[in-house]
Amino acid sequence: MPEKNIPDDPKDFVKGVLEGNRRILAKTITLIESSHPSHQELARVILDELLPDTGRAVRVGVTGVPGVGKSTFIESLGMMLVKKGHRLAVLAVDPSSRRSGGSLMADKMRMEKLSVEENAFIRPSPSGATLGGVARKTREAMLVCEAAGFDVIIVETVGVGQSETEVSSMVDFFLVLMLAGAGDGIQGIKKGVLELADAVAINKADGDNIDKAKNARKEYESALNLLIPSTLTWTPPVLVCSSLEMTGISEIWNIVLEHSDKMTKSGELVINRKKQAVNWMWALVEEGLKDRFHNNPDVKKLLSRITRDVEMGIKSPTVGAGELLFVLDKSRSVDKNRD
Amino acid sequence: MPEKNIPDDPKDFVKGVLEGNRRILAKTITLIESSHPSHQELARVILDELLPDTGRAVRVGVTGVPGVGKSTFIESLGMMLVKKGHRLAVLAVDPSSRRSGGSLMADKMRMEKLSVEENAFIRPSPSGATLGGVARKTREAMLVCEAAGFDVIIVETVGVGQSETEVSSMVDFFLVLMLAGAGDGIQGIKKGVLELADAVAINKADGDNIDKAKNARKEYESALNLLIPSTLTWTPPVLVCSSLEMTGISEIWNIVLEHSDKMTKSGELVINRKKQAVNWMWALVEEGLKDRFHNNPDVKKLLSRITRDVEMGIKSPTVGAGELLFVLDKSRSVDKNRD
Repeated sequence: MPEKNIPDDPKDFVKGVLEGNRRILAKTITLIESSHPSHQELARVILDELLPDTGRAVRVGVTGVPGVGKSTFIESLGMMLVKKGHRLAVLAVDPSSRRSGGSLMADKMRMEKLSVEENAFIRPSPSGATLGGVARKTREAMLVCEAAGFDVIIVETVGVGQSETEVSSMVDFFLVLMLAGAGDGIQGIKKGVLELADAVAINKADGDNIDKAKNARKEYESALNLLIPSTLTWTPPVLVCSSLEMTGISEIWNIVLEHSDKMTKSGELVINRKKQAVNWMWALVEEGLKDRFHNNPDVKKLLSRITRDVEMGIKSPTVGAGELLFVLDKSRSVDKNRD
Repeated sequence: MPEKNIPDDPKDFVKGVLEGNRRILAKTITLIESSHPSHQELARVILDELLPDTGRAVRVGVTGVPGVGKSTFIESLGMMLVKKGHRLAVLAVDPSSRRSGGSLMADKMRMEKLSVEENAFIRPSPSGATLGGVARKTREAMLVCEAAGFDVIIVETVGVGQSETEVSSMVDFFLVLMLAGAGDGIQGIKKGVLELADAVAINKADGDNIDKAKNARKEYESALNLLIPSTLTWTPPVLVCSSLEMTGISEIWNIVLEHSDKMTKSGELVINRKKQAVNWMWALVEEGLKDRFHNNPDVKKLLSRITRDVEMGIKSPTVGAGELLFVLDKSRSVDKNRD
């Protein structure tokens, strides 16, 4: 049980994290992931103390549908980075893990070389009731890893849900992995994910697959050029790589660095991170407001009936929403009288 | 003043709308657009009565950046539909109208032929403090037009903001107008808009522009095919048209009908509309919750300071959100004590 034997003085945690103590880093993240109120309060205090020491890593999101080779790619990239002297943390946002009980990287063996490296820290997806909850924990874990001196953070996610938007809103660079010739069109990747991409990489460009990958690169280049507006600072490139043969991996890293450099010089990196922080706060406020709404006993009583009536066209959405909000407001004034 | 001389018996409104009385239709929409509580209450009662008589129109959204020729296109399509015996209502969602004081279609002269047709009803964008407010009013106006017997509703919007998502969430078919050779890439259209498209039409395919339009059609076809997943029922086609020469307009209408037919047969039309209604209710509930939050005097006092601290990285988003929600909850319990 990782919650056991945790010291309750936040100072010990802060000191340990800043010294890069892996055991204390892991325990701090466990506190962040815990749903126990006292753990959450402790985590809040620790995080607030660590905040001035965060923000110095390159934050990279990696997505792609199952089978695209995300774990192998991250291991190849990670091993290269560690050899270059970087300290790398790999985190995951996998909202499906709450259903299956498993996790994107629960089996660390999928990154067996990287997981034994001293300068790599791999953490599977936290479990959580909502994607927002999972993403919040991952975002905070990212900050703690930065305070612990990791200078590259990779956040892995699956390319089939809403989690990409959450991940792209916590990283500086968002990489979408694709496969060549895995079928027509978009290979099951969710609408809108490619629009978040700062780069697209056609993975598994090895063996018989090289020509197919190069053709796919051209196709994606012209499609992205037509459909996805580039900014003054950045036009998302399309690359090919093979995690197996370790080709194209350093080119991808160079693109990440080039992006980071341009965005830093243009001032957009700072602006983006400020925006991300404020948006994040708003997302949490909205989540909190929705929780209060859904947990209201009077709302609970009416919700399913009203939803059904709106769905069936018996009640207009405006009337349905009005009734629910009226019940919420009235319920509060009843509370007042009870006091 | 359109608010003057409005009878206060909802039955008169309901009867008038169902009889297709244009004056009463217009006054009902004015009630919907009014911010006066008694008008809103009256509108709510009327809308609830009309609800069983809504839902029988084909709902089409049309978007495109300024200069793409939206108004001329809608007039051409509208004149064709009226000649075919349809009754057409044209509404607009233009959130910019609240700033400029103007409106997408404030100048009805832009559709001078259509605006004098007996079987066409043109209504400019309502004004409103928020896009959500503008869109809500337009959605309700759409329902009233359906009850008044209009069998085609066109909702016009500009292709540069968030309004496309709102409009696509209230229509069955979403058409994106583009221009050929107006510059590289996406011609200023907002990221994600093309992903909402059920069809793309390259407008102004006339004169010297025909070949360019046909080339653009091919380019968009392959790009959409690569980037935008089609469903089992529908693959968004790319068409060319000229509102000036009236070419391609009937082809576009045939596509709308084909889509409507396929979606009806597959059952998706009904499912989509149910989803749209429930999503709409949720959007209204969320808007109401946010209003209550922003109007709370204690939240107001702290909001800008906390937002700034989060933006500057002095406070984590989690702590900022927690403080705001704490203040909201405390403020409610203070209210209780005051009672």
